[in-house]
Amino acid sequence: MPHLTELDTPAALVDIPCMQRNIARMQQRMEGLGVKFRPHVKTSKCLPVVQAQLEAGAQGITVSTLKEAEQFWAAGIADILYAVCIVPARLPQVLALRRQGCGLKIITDSLAGAEAIARFGRQQGEAFEVWIEVDVDGHRSGIAPEAEALLAVGRALHAGGMKLGGVMAHAGASYECDEPVALRRIAEQERAGTVRAANRLRQAGLPCPAVSVGSTPTALSAQSLEGVTEVRAGVYVFFDLVMHNVGVCPLQDIALSVLTTVIGHQPEKGWAIVDAGWMAMSRDRGTHKQRRDFGYGQVCSEAGEPITGYVMDGANQEHGIVCRQGGGEIDGDIERRFPLGTRLRILPNHACATAAQHPVYQALGPDGQARAWPRFYGW
Amino acid sequence: MPHLTELDTPAALVDIPCMQRNIARMQQRMEGLGVKFRPHVKTSKCLPVVQAQLEAGAQGITVSTLKEAEQFWAAGIADILYAVCIVPARLPQVLALRRQGCGLKIITDSLAGAEAIARFGRQQGEAFEVWIEVDVDGHRSGIAPEAEALLAVGRALHAGGMKLGGVMAHAGASYECDEPVALRRIAEQERAGTVRAANRLRQAGLPCPAVSVGSTPTALSAQSLEGVTEVRAGVYVFFDLVMHNVGVCPLQDIALSVLTTVIGHQPEKGWAIVDAGWMAMSRDRGTHKQRRDFGYGQVCSEAGEPITGYVMDGANQEHGIVCRQGGGEIDGDIERRFPLGTRLRILPNHACATAAQHPVYQALGPDGQARAWPRFYGW
Repeated sequence: MPHLTELDTPAALVDIPCMQRNIARMQQRMEGLGVKFRPHVKTSKCLPVVQAQLEAGAQGITVSTLKEAEQFWAAGIADILYAVCIVPARLPQVLALRRQGCGLKIITDSLAGAEAIARFGRQQGEAFEVWIEVDVDGHRSGIAPEAEALLAVGRALHAGGMKLGGVMAHAGASYECDEPVALRRIAEQERAGTVRAANRLRQAGLPCPAVSVGSTPTALSAQSLEGVTEVRAGVYVFFDLVMHNVGVCPLQDIALSVLTTVIGHQPEKGWAIVDAGWMAMSRDRGTHKQRRDFGYGQVCSEAGEPITGYVMDGANQEHGIVCRQGGGEIDGDIERRFPLGTRLRILPNHACATAAQHPVYQALGPDGQARAWPRFYGW
Repeated sequence: MPHLTELDTPAALVDIPCMQRNIARMQQRMEGLGVKFRPHVKTSKCLPVVQAQLEAGAQGITVSTLKEAEQFWAAGIADILYAVCIVPARLPQVLALRRQGCGLKIITDSLAGAEAIARFGRQQGEAFEVWIEVDVDGHRSGIAPEAEALLAVGRALHAGGMKLGGVMAHAGASYECDEPVALRRIAEQERAGTVRAANRLRQAGLPCPAVSVGSTPTALSAQSLEGVTEVRAGVYVFFDLVMHNVGVCPLQDIALSVLTTVIGHQPEKGWAIVDAGWMAMSRDRGTHKQRRDFGYGQVCSEAGEPITGYVMDGANQEHGIVCRQGGGEIDGDIERRFPLGTRLRILPNHACATAAQHPVYQALGPDGQARAWPRFYGW
């Protein structure tokens, strides 16, 4: 196993002890609130990470693509929720997984979708398990808890011979909060709306065993999860600068960073040029509109200590520009501060997006030794 | 071979006839201006694309990572310029390629870099071929043509026993132009600055055979390339919405698009939700500050016809929001316009970034049949 100091750059580093603390914190919180926890594996797409989540007590996983479902089913994980409304043309792929024994659950938020699932299911003699997506904050997909369509979709599935497995919601609007009061409010809005949808289905005589909610900010802010059966969250496993700005993690909880090397300078501009550009960081500028803009990321020493006031301010494909944060005073000492060959770490804006740029994580133990943890991509 | 209409979504489509026209246009322009053309393969990272460029007359390739150098050398391409200032710690990797017979050239823009190369080269008995990066527009790396450092770096390499192979510049600031006059001006600035640097080296008694310039906008705008020996450009092979806004390609020249399927609606908001999010498009918002903001991309029919006024306005990891451009009037008819299951294509802001999200291109011939063209990623 190579040591941190021997790794080629750029590289995606995972601090294993830090990740384990993030996993334990979330799992303990969910157990305290009396709900099951179903991590969203779209963040890592990496088996050792997901195994650590399951070993800590997670029950089942959430996926964003059928590729993830196939990969984790092949690794022996059967309880899988595919949390993107199903494309009817991909139902044969779902059927193939279910016929192999995978307990894959799919979701829909439309009558047309429900009817297509039921039609194909009946043709194939398969009672697909379907959850209905509920919209609790207007940010993306889902049926409003009060909408007439909710019951119509439930009836189309149930009467059509499918297994109506529950309701699920994702309060993505929580990413726009940055105050504990607002976070608790959106968490309660997510809980209440999803439970209301479940109760409407039940009052109409339809089954609704699962009531699933979640996002990292709401999972970490909810005060009560009454009526909820499970929570989903993804990015908490690594955290990132967006979550730091939202207020749910200190910088030292960010387990993912990009290792990079200084390849040049523009001293009169106060720039150090590094070999991590947007290909290594992603183009995500999620902190741009938040309380603190970190550019393309917070600069840290190779050992992982944040170097306050220095960010990656610009990025081309394989070049990053490191300088003082906020475009203020030029650092006239940049060549001496970060000489050619200096190795730095960059904390990312958005862990899901940065991780996606890398075929492999270099997972660091407390001894600084790096294990190669492969991740997959594509669809 | 599957037909376009049978492909799973999301998928990265390459329109082969369109790509071939882009390749022919650039090659003919370079031949007309009397220079060699060395395409930048960071855009495609795909052997069939690069083979088409070489068959059209390209001489050598430009790479942005040593992984690209290794992959294309393994495919038999020997004349390779690695156009990112070398990390001294990666010189052993360069040495290994050169010892295999690969004509890999590296670049530097600092005395410290030149001295590190010469020191390692002498230790290993290898005369690395090194080009000096010149800064013609202040946008990133390189030494200003007039700077004292230029001669110091040239002397350190030459006296140190390395092969001083030339100078190279990239006028990245051309991406910020959108008028022909400004484009011609920046192209001339790139040419003149690079030639000036070459002449200063020669006047100091140093060799400087190659004078290399390029970016897609300047390559397509230069009126004279006197003193230049070769041009580099990458994104022209696919083009994209950023290049369209710069003014160097009509929409119909964009050869890369993302095939996607409608998975739901929010009718009261005028939204169709599609199964291509930022994972399929990238987070690149390159048109945000340009004359026309296309959100995450221009919507087209499955056949590739632009649907004027519709863009992907928002993106989550695996969800895209398609609606009217500019956030104006809501399309109350969105469910009938794009029913569940409708297949669309999205033209990307930035082809290099969108392509990087996909393990494979689906390359469409004139018959609509799709060939799988693999691409690689990582470092």
